[in-house]
Order: sequence, then structure tokens, then C-alpha cells
Amino acid sequence: MTSDASATPDANVSTKFGANSETPRVIRMHEADNVAIVANDFGLPAGARLPSGPALRERVPQGHKVALTDIAEGAPVRRYNVVIGYAAEPLPEGSWVHERRLVMPTPPALEGLPIATNNAPLAPALEGYTFEGYRNGDGSVGTRNILGITTTVQCVSGIVEHAVARIRAELLPKYPYVDDVVGLEHIYGCGVAIDAPEAEIPIRTLRNISFNPNFGGGTMVVGLGCEKLQPERLLPAGLVRGRGASPAQDYDIVTLQDPSHVGFDAMISSIMRTAEQHLQRLNRRLRETCPASALVVGMQCGGSDAFSGVTANPALGFASDLLVRAGATVMFSENTEVRDGVAQLAARAATEQVAQALIAELGWYDRYLARGSVDRSANTTPGNKKGGLSNIVEKAMGSIIKSGTAPISGVVPPGERARQKGLLYAATPASDFICGTLQLAAGMTLHIFTTGRGTPYGLAAVPVIKVATRSELARRWHDLMDIDAGRIATGEATIEQLGWELFHTMLDVASGRRRTWTEHWKLSNALALFNPAPVT
Amino acid sequence: MTSDASATPDANVSTKFGANSETPRVIRMHEADNVAIVANDFGLPAGARLPSGPALRERVPQGHKVALTDIAEGAPVRRYNVVIGYAAEPLPEGSWVHERRLVMPTPPALEGLPIATNNAPLAPALEGYTFEGYRNGDGSVGTRNILGITTTVQCVSGIVEHAVARIRAELLPKYPYVDDVVGLEHIYGCGVAIDAPEAEIPIRTLRNISFNPNFGGGTMVVGLGCEKLQPERLLPAGLVRGRGASPAQDYDIVTLQDPSHVGFDAMISSIMRTAEQHLQRLNRRLRETCPASALVVGMQCGGSDAFSGVTANPALGFASDLLVRAGATVMFSENTEVRDGVAQLAARAATEQVAQALIAELGWYDRYLARGSVDRSANTTPGNKKGGLSNIVEKAMGSIIKSGTAPISGVVPPGERARQKGLLYAATPASDFICGTLQLAAGMTLHIFTTGRGTPYGLAAVPVIKVATRSELARRWHDLMDIDAGRIATGEATIEQLGWELFHTMLDVASGRRRTWTEHWKLSNALALFNPAPVT
Repeated sequence: MTSDASATPDANVSTKFGANSETPRVIRMHEADNVAIVANDFGLPAGARLPSGPALRERVPQGHKVALTDIAEGAPVRRYNVVIGYAAEPLPEGSWVHERRLVMPTPPALEGLPIATNNAPLAPALEGYTFEGYRNGDGSVGTRNILGITTTVQCVSGIVEHAVARIRAELLPKYPYVDDVVGLEHIYGCGVAIDAPEAEIPIRTLRNISFNPNFGGGTMVVGLGCEKLQPERLLPAGLVRGRGASPAQDYDIVTLQDPSHVGFDAMISSIMRTAEQHLQRLNRRLRETCPASALVVGMQCGGSDAFSGVTANPALGFASDLLVRAGATVMFSENTEVRDGVAQLAARAATEQVAQALIAELGWYDRYLARGSVDRSANTTPGNKKGGLSNIVEKAMGSIIKSGTAPISGVVPPGERARQKGLLYAATPASDFICGTLQLAAGMTLHIFTTGRGTPYGLAAVPVIKVATRSELARRWHDLMDIDAGRIATGEATIEQLGWELFHTMLDVASGRRRTWTEHWKLSNALALFNPAPVT
Repeated sequence: MTSDASATPDANVSTKFGANSETPRVIRMHEADNVAIVANDFGLPAGARLPSGPALRERVPQGHKVALTDIAEGAPVRRYNVVIGYAAEPLPEGSWVHERRLVMPTPPALEGLPIATNNAPLAPALEGYTFEGYRNGDGSVGTRNILGITTTVQCVSGIVEHAVARIRAELLPKYPYVDDVVGLEHIYGCGVAIDAPEAEIPIRTLRNISFNPNFGGGTMVVGLGCEKLQPERLLPAGLVRGRGASPAQDYDIVTLQDPSHVGFDAMISSIMRTAEQHLQRLNRRLRETCPASALVVGMQCGGSDAFSGVTANPALGFASDLLVRAGATVMFSENTEVRDGVAQLAARAATEQVAQALIAELGWYDRYLARGSVDRSANTTPGNKKGGLSNIVEKAMGSIIKSGTAPISGVVPPGERARQKGLLYAATPASDFICGTLQLAAGMTLHIFTTGRGTPYGLAAVPVIKVATRSELARRWHDLMDIDAGRIATGEATIEQLGWELFHTMLDVASGRRRTWTEHWKLSNALALFNPAPVT
């Protein structure tokens, strides 16, 4: 960002519940922009004079845009040096530029894009950064040591929940090196069109979640018996114990309909017996020093506001570049939030093949939305708009910034596992829960999540580092937000400083030296599968 | 059913783990049928001579079909006096008639059906049957007294789970007349195309679940603040407290992003404070004697086998007729499991309007499946087939039987609330969890679920009576199955006897005099919303 914000940090910024500074502060992202956003915690009143000259013609809330010059009806409104819309009416300087005063641009075409034209590798490489992780037999490294219980169908979830509670209470205390036990419950497995062309997405999602490095190279499986998603269909041939498995790959199956299960207790005992075998193995694992290149980081934003693209996401972009320079795997996602920036991303693709894969995923998603009679504009929420984001174009620009400046070295289709190092585009819906679930399937071992409006979102299988875009949120949700990126808006920290802080926090959290707030409170959201195929 | 089964009850039937009787027993559903199913617990060996004459040419498992006469290649195979398929090869008498030996018929057209031609009301009315229920202000009657916590978006679910655990531990013991507290969590609310034409289905589902009579005329609501599904959109105008609500309708809203919530504890305290107000009100409610006509029963089957249509479902059909004669509301569902019986159902419609509504729902579902490149045949599961059900036509005939013989007095679109008495078709997918969720939205206060293969399925908001289709399952899952309908196959009970037993069990469970096994173990499945619209 370039900025004509007042360079003076807000003197009242340390006041506990935010300060209504008398000094107007606005943030402009690029010198070609004709709008800027109001930075002051409680907005600015009519008449307030901006550092760059114009006085406000009306009250403008925090995070909302003000016209820096007169903008004629039909003229482009630029933010991030991108046309985020066209003036629906004349917008004299000092006007509040909000959703209803903008006409959204049409989405960029997916043909004729610049392909791999802006993909110079980042330099220099970062050497010597490490974290303490759990090495797995397949070379992957976990950040936590968790017993995962894969389920093949929702029918079993009542039994699995009961068993998980008992494992946690009765077995886990005996295995102090195991962090937790997690039932991987979901609503797939039966009552679905399992042979539909698009059914492979939820199936491979569940399969690859079972391979997540935080489960130590093998979950156990609880199935019902009569479900469509049989264990042999869920897991690849050769991985099922007693059916050709290698000892390092434990996918023991407990089938509730097995004739040996006479009554409820027999089912619970059977799950607990199998769990104990896994706990014994997991408990022998120890953290080892691993290079930062072994990290697999999933980035996401949710409950976004206009500060997402000004504070937290640019800092995360800087941290993402650091991770790429250290050789790690970093994923960004959210199809509808990159759609309007496709030209930038295609140009940043490392190869033509990567660019075409990206374009293909976004094209598929356009058609998926059209099939339901909607388009990318269905993305934005009332909270986004209240937070100053007028439309999906503006939201997208603030979202993409978290991908930093590295070339895009690969594309991960939804539910697939990431197979490269570097910056990857994991093609997922923007829904927080669905994106998180798909990044888990991609092999994410650390999740970093920026939020402007605030969300208690968490995942059971990986630590989630929560970054507040505004200091007011960070103060109010002091025991839910791990990092306050609002300090960038107040001038207390630079994007670079916060980027390094995020990078070091990631290494600390990955190593278990630091626990996130969602871990502290054990806050987690259910897995949410992306199933574009019908249910039956 | 008419049957040429051996009339002699199996002498070994009380043996704990099932008996492999030497006396071959088969069940034919209609005298025009050219197949019957093997009733013996462990199937019958090659050479076993059937009561009606032919000897088996090969081993036939329990529940599977045997040809009673020579069936030529291409000739119709009849069960329930319906063509369930055509012989894919010559099937001499005594052959095992399984999935791969049948060609499935095309689905019946939705045009030119008999409309309301077979809809004489059941007689005589049943008077004097009652249950002890909780009367609500809107005239509905609950079977349990539960505090429901509606959520507007999945983001809040970690917080709500934490709060529910604390409410259960700290508050519920002070309110002995309240049965439970249930967080109505789901994966809708944001990251979805909320303005898509079909988005109304999940939204009205959540809305109507909040009106379920078991929540005593009002849940409380926990929202995030920035979600797409704002409380005002979820709940109808006038129902939100402080925004025009009547005192009887409590939909207090706790918004996590509210500026008054400083930190985690403030959010939990806020939920608990609101919950306590609701618990105080709920705790004053007492059961009153209500006519059986106030019951709203949802019927479903899952994990079906060939006995589903022979034992449990016919008995449930008899019980359904009793409920209708007593003036109650009874719903059957599962679009793909009635599709092949549409002619029968259109004829049973009480009015032409009802028939057309039914046809419209099934037509919409045909198109929904086609959009995903599948059809009704996606329904059947490996367990169905292992249990002897060759295809969806055969499964459908066994499924429809649970609707009894009453005229169909109404059709409930997915997510809508049932508004009539009598037998209703609630148009839902067959997925157990989705169907259960939609029947909850329709206002179900009692759920009855038949199963052949066995499932621990349960719901948190209503009691679920589980009926085993086979005695072997009832014995093996002795503390998960509430009723053994396998006694019909062994000759220990008639359909009529079991139908009355189901009817009386429903009144007992509705009254709280009897608790179901899923209630005993607190087994419940998550809500599963039917969302045919895209996610974003």
C-alpha cells in the first residue's frame, strides 16, 4: 500500500475501547486511487477535513470510502489501482462512496489473459528457520499429535461422539504426548449420489483429511457397514489394515454392524480398544527440529471489512512471501474472492500449465454458480458491507493481497492434496468452514485467519492463528484474537514488522511453544464438505 | 402382504444370536408375485425345498429373492404385485434373483396418472386415545420440553457448544422440568448464495425448526453479526423480542459481535443469562392430557433390507392408519423412494390439488437429480443390496408401504411446516439426516424409524423410536432397537398386532412414560440442511 494517511500515530489509540480521535485519518492504497477509507475507530463526521484537503460532505463510518476528487456519474472508482465500480451518480469530493452509489464491473474474461508474465522467483532464500514438528513416515511433518477418527457416514456420529468423550476422559490422560482425539464427523456417506461426476470432490476431501499430517500418518475408521461410502472406497487399496496395509499406515476399521457388536457397549468398547492401540503409537512420537520448509500453511479471511485489505492481509502477504522464501507450502483460496483478480494471478503463475489450471478451476466455478442462477456477487455479506466493502471486486482486491508477491507454483483442485512447495492456489469456495475443510484435505498443518468483523471460527485438527484487522476488535476480543494487525492502520507497526511477527508466531505455534486462543478455549467448527453433486 | 410363508413359527427363534432353522421359510408379498424372499436368519442352502415346491438351485442369503417359477429372459419379475425389473437372463425356478440378474424398469411418467381415484377416508374414527403433552400458545403440542438455541451461522457453533455444555452442567439441574438444551448448529448462514432461487429451502428449514413444538413456542437465537442470514431474515417480522414480539414468542437474540461482548466470558455469560430466562419459563410448563390428534409423527426408514417392506414398514403402515383415524398428523417422505409408486400415491391423493402438488415435487426432484447427471437409481446402497433389495423400484415398494392406506391429505414442500391433519407427504430427499431435519422443520414431535441393517441414528430435538425389521438385529442391538418387527416374519406377531403395539408405544413415548434407547444413550445426529443452491 502507498498511503496518504496522517503519519502521526493516534495519540488515543491505547484507550481501552477505542478512541474517537479528533485527527481525521484516511488510508489510500495506491496513488492512482480516487477514494480512500476512513481509519478513525468511530468514523468521521460531516465537515471533517482530510489530510489531503477535501472536507467530508456527510458522516462516513470507519472503513468506508470517501471520494478524494469529484467523480462524474459513470466514471471509474479506483481502489488498489483497480476499478472497483463506476459511479452510479455524481460523487463530489468528500462524498461517502458506498455500495448503492457504485455499479459493479463485469467480471474479467477468462480468455486472453497474461500468462506467466510476472513470475520472477522471490529472493533471497531464507535459511535457518526451523520449528519443532512431528515427522511422519511419508515425509510430512505435523504441528500437533492428534488421534483422528475417520467416519464413513453420518449415521455413526452419535456413537463416535460418545466414544470420543470417553477416550478423552479415560484414555487421553494416560498418553500425555497425544494432544487430542478428534472425531471427523460430516454429513456425507449415504443419501448422496455417490456415482455422480462431481461426487469425487467430497470423497477425496474425506480421504485426504484422513492423511492430514497432524494425524501422524493414519487415523482409525468407524463405519456403519451398509453405507455407500464403504471404507474400501474411501481409502486407497493397500491402506486398510489386514487388507495389505504396511505397518506404518494404520487405518483400522471398526464397523458398527459387525456381528460381534452385541449392544451399545460392545461398539464403544471396540472403538476404545482400537483407539488405545493408536494412542500407544502416537504417544511414542516426539517433536524434532524441522526446517520451516516442512510447514503447510493455509491462509483464509472471514468476516472481512475494508481494513482486511489494508492491515491484516498485506501483512499476511508479506509473511506468505517469507514462508515461500523459506521453502514452505502456503495456500490461498476462495474462488469468488480471486475471480476479479484473475489477470494478476494468471500473470503470477510459475508456468503456463499452472495458469491454465487456475483458469480452469475459476471457469468451472463460474459454471457451478450459474447452474444455481447466481454469480460471484453472491459472496459479499451484510457485515462486509457494513465494514465498508462495497462489492466483491473491492473485497477480492483486499483478499488477494494475502497471497503476497511470490509466483504461484501450483493449483490444488478442491479436496486434493497439495503436492508442491511454494505458493499454491487451493481452489475452494470462500465459505470459511468449507475452505478450512478443503485446506485440511490439502494437508494444511497450520491455519492463519484474518478477520475484521470478528469470528470465533476454529478447527479441531490444526491450530488457527487469528489476526484482527482493527485494534478495536483486537481489544474487545482480547482472548479470541491472537494478533492485532490494526497497529498498521494506527502507525504503530509497519506491514513488514507485522509480517515478520506473523512469521515468527507461525513457527512458535507450529512448535507447540504457543497455543492459539481457539486451542485454549477448544473452539472448533464442524467439517463442512463441498458437495456440488445431488443428494438422494 | 399375502404370504405363502410357512405358517409355523420358527422353534429356535428365541435363541440369542438367531437360529439357522432347518425349515425353509419364504415370504411372498402378493399372489401374483413370481419371486419370494428367504426368511431364515442365515439364508438357505442349495437344494433346500421351499414350502411351495421348488428346490433352491443355489444358496440364497436371508432377505434375497428366489424365483418361484421359471422366468424367461426379458420377462417381468413381480414383487408387491409390481414389476420390479425384467430378467436379464433366464431365471429357472429356485434361482437366486439378485441385482445383476435384473434390468430396472424406466420410471413411470408424471403425466396421465390416475388422480384422486382411490381416496376413500379411513373408517371408523378412533376416539379416546390421548397422550400427555406440552401445550403451546399456538395450539401445537410438544412431546418434550427442550430449550432450543437457534444459530444463524456456523461461525458461532464453537461458542454455542461451549455454552450448551455449561448450561447443561450448571443451569439444567436447577430446572428439573426441562428435558434438555439443544444447540441447533448447521453449516448454513454465510458462504452461501443466499439470494439464489433455491436458497429459500435451507432458510425456511432453519426458521421452521425454530418453531418446532418441542421448543415450547420459542428458541433463543445466537448470531454472529456480519452473517448473511441475519436474524431478521431467518425469523419472521414481529417475532424478534423488542422488535414487535408478543410475550409468548421468545426469540431473544445474542449477537457475538455486539460491542458489549468484551472477551470470551462475556459471550458465554450473555448466552447463559438469556438461556436462564428461557429455562425459567420452560420449567413452569406441565404435561397435560391431549388428544392423540395433536401428535405430529414423522416416519422414515434407513439402512433398509428386504424385510423392511415385509415386517416393519407394513406394521408402521397399519399404525399410520391408526394415527390418521385418531386425527393425528403423520408424514412419510423420501422422494426417490416413492418415485416409482407415484401412480399409487396420485390415486390416493385426497384432492386433485394434492395430487398435483405431489407430482410437482417429484418432477422438481427429477430435474434436480438430472442437473447433477444422476437419477433415482443413485438411492440404493451396498447395504440395501446385501440385504436383498435389488434396485430402487423394489426398495420403493417396501418403503411406501409405511404410508398405510389412508388418503393423502397434503404435501409439505421441503423445509415447510405441515399445516394439515391426516397423512401428509413431506417431499424430502431420502438421506436419513436430511429427511429427519426436514421433518423436524415440518413440526414433527415424534419420529419413528425402521431399519434392517441397523443404524444408531437419533435426533436431539425429538424422541426417535427405532424398529428393527429382523429379530436377529433386534437381539444383537438389544439396547439400540426399541421394537422388534421381525416377529412378523417368524409368525410370532401379525402386522395388525405390531401396528397396535407401535401405536401404543408412540403414545407412551410421546407422554414421556417411556424413553427411547437413543434418548437413553443421548445419541443424536447433526442437523443436515438440504441446500440445492450453490455455496460461494
